[in-house]
Amino acid sequence: MKLTKYLAVGAAVSLLPTFALAQDAAPSFDEIGPYLMTTLLFLIGGFLVFWMAAGFAMLEAGLVRGKNVATQLTKNIALYSLSAIMYWLVGFNLMYPGDAWIFQGWFGTFSPTELEPVGLAAADAALDYASVASDFFFQLMFCATTASIVSGTLAERIKLWPFLIFVVILTGLIYPIGASWQWGGGWLSEAGFYDFAGSTVVHAAGGFAALAGAIVLGARIGKYKDGKTIPMPGSNLALATLGTFILWLGWFGFNGGSQLAAGTVGDITDVGRIFANTNMAAAAGAVAALIMSQVMYKKPDLTMVLNGALAGLVSITASPLEPTLFGSLWIGAVGGIIVVFAVPMLDKFKIDDVVGAIPVHLIAGFWGTMVVPIYADASFGTQLTGFVAIGGFTFVVSFVVWTILKATVGIRVSEESEINGLDVSELGMEAYPEFTKG
Amino acid sequence: MKLTKYLAVGAAVSLLPTFALAQDAAPSFDEIGPYLMTTLLFLIGGFLVFWMAAGFAMLEAGLVRGKNVATQLTKNIALYSLSAIMYWLVGFNLMYPGDAWIFQGWFGTFSPTELEPVGLAAADAALDYASVASDFFFQLMFCATTASIVSGTLAERIKLWPFLIFVVILTGLIYPIGASWQWGGGWLSEAGFYDFAGSTVVHAAGGFAALAGAIVLGARIGKYKDGKTIPMPGSNLALATLGTFILWLGWFGFNGGSQLAAGTVGDITDVGRIFANTNMAAAAGAVAALIMSQVMYKKPDLTMVLNGALAGLVSITASPLEPTLFGSLWIGAVGGIIVVFAVPMLDKFKIDDVVGAIPVHLIAGFWGTMVVPIYADASFGTQLTGFVAIGGFTFVVSFVVWTILKATVGIRVSEESEINGLDVSELGMEAYPEFTKG
Amino acid sequence: MKLTKYLAVGAAVSLLPTFALAQDAAPSFDEIGPYLMTTLLFLIGGFLVFWMAAGFAMLEAGLVRGKNVATQLTKNIALYSLSAIMYWLVGFNLMYPGDAWIFQGWFGTFSPTELEPVGLAAADAALDYASVASDFFFQLMFCATTASIVSGTLAERIKLWPFLIFVVILTGLIYPIGASWQWGGGWLSEAGFYDFAGSTVVHAAGGFAALAGAIVLGARIGKYKDGKTIPMPGSNLALATLGTFILWLGWFGFNGGSQLAAGTVGDITDVGRIFANTNMAAAAGAVAALIMSQVMYKKPDLTMVLNGALAGLVSITASPLEPTLFGSLWIGAVGGIIVVFAVPMLDKFKIDDVVGAIPVHLIAGFWGTMVVPIYADASFGTQLTGFVAIGGFTFVVSFVVWTILKATVGIRVSEESEINGLDVSELGMEAYPEFTKG
Repeated sequence: MKLTKYLAVGAAVSLLPTFALAQDAAPSFDEIGPYLMTTLLFLIGGFLVFWMAAGFAMLEAGLVRGKNVATQLTKNIALYSLSAIMYWLVGFNLMYPGDAWIFQGWFGTFSPTELEPVGLAAADAALDYASVASDFFFQLMFCATTASIVSGTLAERIKLWPFLIFVVILTGLIYPIGASWQWGGGWLSEAGFYDFAGSTVVHAAGGFAALAGAIVLGARIGKYKDGKTIPMPGSNLALATLGTFILWLGWFGFNGGSQLAAGTVGDITDVGRIFANTNMAAAAGAVAALIMSQVMYKKPDLTMVLNGALAGLVSITASPLEPTLFGSLWIGAVGGIIVVFAVPMLDKFKIDDVVGAIPVHLIAGFWGTMVVPIYADASFGTQLTGFVAIGGFTFVVSFVVWTILKATVGIRVSEESEINGLDVSELGMEAYPEFTKG
Repeated sequence: MKLTKYLAVGAAVSLLPTFALAQDAAPSFDEIGPYLMTTLLFLIGGFLVFWMAAGFAMLEAGLVRGKNVATQLTKNIALYSLSAIMYWLVGFNLMYPGDAWIFQGWFGTFSPTELEPVGLAAADAALDYASVASDFFFQLMFCATTASIVSGTLAERIKLWPFLIFVVILTGLIYPIGASWQWGGGWLSEAGFYDFAGSTVVHAAGGFAALAGAIVLGARIGKYKDGKTIPMPGSNLALATLGTFILWLGWFGFNGGSQLAAGTVGDITDVGRIFANTNMAAAAGAVAALIMSQVMYKKPDLTMVLNGALAGLVSITASPLEPTLFGSLWIGAVGGIIVVFAVPMLDKFKIDDVVGAIPVHLIAGFWGTMVVPIYADASFGTQLTGFVAIGGFTFVVSFVVWTILKATVGIRVSEESEINGLDVSELGMEAYPEFTKG
Repeated sequence: MKLTKYLAVGAAVSLLPTFALAQDAAPSFDEIGPYLMTTLLFLIGGFLVFWMAAGFAMLEAGLVRGKNVATQLTKNIALYSLSAIMYWLVGFNLMYPGDAWIFQGWFGTFSPTELEPVGLAAADAALDYASVASDFFFQLMFCATTASIVSGTLAERIKLWPFLIFVVILTGLIYPIGASWQWGGGWLSEAGFYDFAGSTVVHAAGGFAALAGAIVLGARIGKYKDGKTIPMPGSNLALATLGTFILWLGWFGFNGGSQLAAGTVGDITDVGRIFANTNMAAAAGAVAALIMSQVMYKKPDLTMVLNGALAGLVSITASPLEPTLFGSLWIGAVGGIIVVFAVPMLDKFKIDDVVGAIPVHLIAGFWGTMVVPIYADASFGTQLTGFVAIGGFTFVVSFVVWTILKATVGIRVSEESEINGLDVSELGMEAYPEFTKG
């Protein structure tokens, strides 16, 4: 999303004297209208991105085997919940150092995020931006998304609690630090890095955290045998498809809300552009993956189509505003094609990514980041710098954290647990007790 | 939700002369903007709460056994539909005696709810509130929610049609009468009872109606045997998780829309506060239940986590605006802990609540109602009075209705039907004809 | 939806001089407020109707047998994606010949739809309407809906690729041409045909395309045997119910957004009326089908209830604004009753409609179209003309296209494939590899 919030606080302060005089009369819509509209944009955008948490849960539950479904569901609802707490406790203030309602200083007296007082007066509001609460609500969802990406890759073999410890660190520290470089007014935004809604900041970051985990954790038992990749088909493709549709829907909020403004003709029209482009990229990614899977495997592959749509979405996320509809089409289509090639490629390196999150979020995220300069005012060099900086930082820190977790509490369930399924060993309950065969 | 609607009609009437003069020119946004924004809030809030009907359906379908799923789905779509009709026919006018577009008097010439004319002129609108249609649409969803709560508790043994007769009475009479005491300008609101979005008015009321039904109906065959509680695991935890996410999403509309205004800086900022607090309480409830179930049972329990999130949501519903984010966290967390203790406690009393709706809606609803004075201007005594009044009224009337239904048409399926599943006996069709084993 | 867009471009142009003068100062909310609100309506309405694509996917996946689920899911995500591309490439400009941002003429230099420039100035915007991007996004969803209707009817026996070729023609040409007669300022709108949100233009059109396909394709093997109709129960009624709830939710955007304006008291109040009426018609359809199936078959039928709700929705779609709530109730209820009779009637003609899309969309669409004059200013004769024109055109062209496809590439899978399931033959993967029995 664009960096406008850092400037908003100062602007609001400078408006204070003006409004203090006018406070007795109700402020006019010319004064408050943009604030109302942008706050509404954040609330709508925020609940749509919240919905993506459900999308990831359904996608991943559909793509794991029946014996691991309940654990996967537990991880997803727990990681979202922990993100919400950590982003309040640390993340938001860390990411936007000058932006909390009453900020008492990260290196001074630390305090978690606070909201505006109830019944905020117009004179006290950042009228050229939006309410802090709505902004916090919206930004929180991006942090949670990063964590959602990780859970899919590491499914079917990681222990629940160590995974959740990683989530705490990722959402409280790793993501906010990386994101602050770009969206908190940090060095990447000053360098001219362009990442509108987070192909790199959110998606590639999540992908790199997942990649580090996959390397440290290792592949599932029996996945790579005698040089061959053994397919382990997902248990419920209806659920996986539902998850994809949910993510697609939520992405309108993800990209559209990242306009960070909806109170002028230019801004709301831009939000419209973003919706149309986002949809086009997803559609093109799905169609491209459909055709590619037909060409390569002689039969269309539904999971490739689902991941193709998601890769199209990730691809357009770095710049959903600037391209034409045709631009969005080919950017999304390339994203969809990437997935069809990247999924088997990862398997060659024996990196076991259960749901294909690394191809979708990291590799298509790279593509989306690098293609920005074609339509928007950005340079390839800076785009690469941004991707390498955030990706490298996330990967290295994640790798260290995963390694420490492995060496201390252990991150992998026992062989017996893995074979019998995590639902029995980790939860003692099954997702489908009446359905699954012996 | 706050009681502002009762005053709105008078205010609108007083504005009439002003606008009558100005009618020729288009009214300015300073005049109509708040009406547009609040109406939009009701429409968005309303469709989000509608979505909760789907959430209850999925949650309950996931938590019953496979042989009862189709019946549970039928109950849910039917109860929502009947609520929509009954609330139009009786409920809305009963709940807001002065609020219908053309109100011909409950004790005079009765008439169902009527909408404003097509193409309403600004001069005829309640410009300091919102459109009647949008308000009706929003309020209707709260009525339907009350009924949704009941269906889960009584699952797997109640006959379809007697259940639906109860729904007709609950949504046409019981809920609207109780709710009018608080939201219709009745004695509880005058006494200072504080229940912003309905921890008591909606959730505890639904819980008490369910409790009365559970007592009259009795436990499922085999549930309590030789002093032990026999687990009867839900057939589809993916569906139950989806239902929980749907409810969580819908709750933003439930609580946020209950601000009943979105056209000033203070109001839209408050809606933002509500969104952030609601989310925090749900997250805290989920995490607390996760930890508590680990501590108590040595393994996390997904259904406890789901109910923990819902209990967090119910807990914050009485006052989602006033608490800080930290307040929302601990209020929600206590809600989540309550559930983990209340579920087995109910079993001790041999009250068979299939989905845990009584702990989530009644007990966490009590907690949410009683904790209000910590952050908002309310007294514990009045909160208790309100809870006892609405809860007691709902329980007693529901108990009488259930007892009459039991004595006349009968409310329980035959023993054979219950063992073979209600889908065969009540519907003659199965939800998963190809999945379920023998 | 109402025909206002055709007039908007001219009006916007006539406003240009005025705004060119005022361009230096920020335009007031009195000038831009309606544009902001209507654009927001299209974006919200659009994402709700997008969500219907997921609804159709879930409904259809739930109503086919397990062996065909993955294929049905693939068809649904692919048809939506292809619609998005075709409607951009041809459809939108074909449907609204004067409405593209820069229209270079259908018979002159053809160009796909283009969006407004980034950061559009108020002076260049159609301030009495909405952004082109938001409008395109919204209209696209209607086109996709038409295609979604077809996939359900033809499930379990049609080849994937020929089906998708038909979708390309339907969404690129057939639907836009028919729709332009009404919504593109064509002869039907001039004749006074009234179809607010598309009972005929979208739903009956989709139903006729499906009917033509069903006739050319023939019934599933074993469906009609010795004069009897053999039931082939859906594999997952929980999914089908979820799909119905999704469609119901999306329909608020479908009908509400078709007001095409939200920036005046009259318009937003009308959107509220539409929401309330739409909900009532769906509820009444569900209840009517519940009662009718109880009366006719002695047991309620969940799939009838689901289709009853959908038929109620289709019935009110031609005129969701004008009826009273009571009007919406009986219009929807008749729709629900129609379905209960029409489903077995189609079977008598050996038209094999797997999900009941023809009764729901075509027959209830006819009912909805013909009942308009009771509450709105329309004539039965013109309504019939409109239905026959669009229905006849769609049926004949579809029939020809299906016949050509049958004669060339073939549209039906082999007998063996059909018996073993399309998932194995068409995709080589199963939706529920661990659930389905032998």
